[in-house]
Amino acid sequence: MNFKSSQLIFRKKWPSRSELGDEVLFIYDRILEKKSVGFSSWIRNSKLKYAVSAGESLKDVRNFADHIEKITSLTEKTSVRKLTVCVIGGGSVGDFGGFVASVLKRGVRLVHIPSTWLAAIDSAHGGKTALNVSCSKNQIGTFYTAEKVFLIQDLLLDQPTERVFEGFSELFKIALLQGGKFWNKIAQEKKLDASLLWKYLPEAIKAKLKIVSKDPKEKTGYRHILNLGHTIGHVVESQYRLPHGIAINYGLDFALRWSLIKGFLTVKEYHGIQKAPLSFYLLSMSRDHLVPRSIKQVNQFKSLLLTDKKKTEAQTLRFVFLKKPGSALVQEVTVGEVLQEMQRQFIEDGDE
Amino acid sequence: MNFKSSQLIFRKKWPSRSELGDEVLFIYDRILEKKSVGFSSWIRNSKLKYAVSAGESLKDVRNFADHIEKITSLTEKTSVRKLTVCVIGGGSVGDFGGFVASVLKRGVRLVHIPSTWLAAIDSAHGGKTALNVSCSKNQIGTFYTAEKVFLIQDLLLDQPTERVFEGFSELFKIALLQGGKFWNKIAQEKKLDASLLWKYLPEAIKAKLKIVSKDPKEKTGYRHILNLGHTIGHVVESQYRLPHGIAINYGLDFALRWSLIKGFLTVKEYHGIQKAPLSFYLLSMSRDHLVPRSIKQVNQFKSLLLTDKKKTEAQTLRFVFLKKPGSALVQEVTVGEVLQEMQRQFIEDGDE
Repeated sequence: MNFKSSQLIFRKKWPSRSELGDEVLFIYDRILEKKSVGFSSWIRNSKLKYAVSAGESLKDVRNFADHIEKITSLTEKTSVRKLTVCVIGGGSVGDFGGFVASVLKRGVRLVHIPSTWLAAIDSAHGGKTALNVSCSKNQIGTFYTAEKVFLIQDLLLDQPTERVFEGFSELFKIALLQGGKFWNKIAQEKKLDASLLWKYLPEAIKAKLKIVSKDPKEKTGYRHILNLGHTIGHVVESQYRLPHGIAINYGLDFALRWSLIKGFLTVKEYHGIQKAPLSFYLLSMSRDHLVPRSIKQVNQFKSLLLTDKKKTEAQTLRFVFLKKPGSALVQEVTVGEVLQEMQRQFIEDGDE
Repeated sequence: MNFKSSQLIFRKKWPSRSELGDEVLFIYDRILEKKSVGFSSWIRNSKLKYAVSAGESLKDVRNFADHIEKITSLTEKTSVRKLTVCVIGGGSVGDFGGFVASVLKRGVRLVHIPSTWLAAIDSAHGGKTALNVSCSKNQIGTFYTAEKVFLIQDLLLDQPTERVFEGFSELFKIALLQGGKFWNKIAQEKKLDASLLWKYLPEAIKAKLKIVSKDPKEKTGYRHILNLGHTIGHVVESQYRLPHGIAINYGLDFALRWSLIKGFLTVKEYHGIQKAPLSFYLLSMSRDHLVPRSIKQVNQFKSLLLTDKKKTEAQTLRFVFLKKPGSALVQEVTVGEVLQEMQRQFIEDGDE
């Protein structure tokens, strides 16, 4: 196993400067200066800092030259061997900052301090960095593991409620993939709030890293099961500009129902999952808003499904099905099959 | 030892398509279509190809978005796992193409076919890729080892004579660093031509990879000894727009003479090296053209020495000295010391 894990550090408060490295360049979401009092006073006296605006435009390769010129100029007088890039932000800031760290002077030390649940549970772990090319997400990037990831309770609990949904999708997904005790505990939980996410954060990260460690560089395809719920989730997220959490919740529900229809998931297992009180949150969207209604929309769907990085050949994509909690499988499906299944689920909902 | 070496393949002729990979994107120096008949007919029927103009502008990060958009669009329908990037060209094309391969879809297979002696002996081996930022060379990049490197006799012997000089600098340098039998053989050679470079190519590559394998990612600093002759060589190359080979030959001679004056190299060892017939080629430049003559030139020198990636602190840089063939050492020196030694060597030449 060739995978070096990050050191995970769970904390109530912000780390001291000396825990981060000798000379630290902070790349951070500038919104934190406004939203987090703790962050503002923590960052205030830092010499090397680079504030960015979160979002896909940060990851656009068209903007990369500007960013890297400023960053190179900031770190000009710093010895490569002493430099650490410390990234504070959510998914897009982490993807961008991780990429910068992986290529700056051919790679410097990297520390992540995720500021969103989504990043804390998922994207800060497993070493993926990415930029977008011509509006296609994550077309370039590196595998580059952070030396340390700090999970800071004060920072994470400070987020607005809609962020909890985003984290929940990932928590629920990873519990389904892990199965066993982790899933059984989640299946008993009744109340979704930030404290639930904090409580299960160590287990969720551990479960993700277990999968990553079996296929750290996506050579065998095993790591692909982490896309459970995401293939269709990402499409509706783009197509209808839905919040990520809502879209992935829908994607998970879609995947579970399709797994049932395909016979991968038994009726008993499916109902077992449905019985979990938190499964209620998967049903946050009614299907009639999502099924494409015109030729134009169908074509948009097709092209979104196929520009997705998970595609393999021209017209097929790899879809993750669940067999039972703790066991997933990946199968090639066509775009047409996806659209038919969306339609089928919509009609089935009408029957009830 | 964490270093995975490339497979080295020495050949008279071009490889067959199936030796390169399932689906191959060729990134190549467009000059080869004009200059090499062998190449032109070899590449003709390839589907995925991307011609570039060699040189530092290719490596400018300002142009990267344009290149990667075209490359992403070319490879859009190709499965990540089947894709191999095959780079045919000299140093800049190799640095650029290697970087592309290392980040495209988070890394695809890479094959190098160096078309210059410089690349064949040195830059195609050891996994360094690079782009330039704000005119500073190699400010970003990755360590990314090619799966295979093809050394093609027909292609390499086809080069103009001035290219032989460039290769010779690297051959002479690596023989000095390796010492032992390799140096002893080089020290006996009388005639510098392309066949000499081809003859010693396997030994030169092996000697370089031996050094790289002890410090593949430049963590310990050991790999830095490969810069013997290059610190000052690169400066005069930029300052006076000298051909790379000429500049590095001068840099090697400069480093040997400074090593002698510093007492690292004994008079006996120094004369041993001087006695080698090929050492004559180190003296291709007279020093009076190179010593800075004005405050303006001095300042240009200083800034070139310090923007060099090998600097550590504001005013010092790591300089590689030779103790004897087979043994080098790295010492911090100031810019002032470098300039004084240039002046000293110039005056010493005047005395003769």
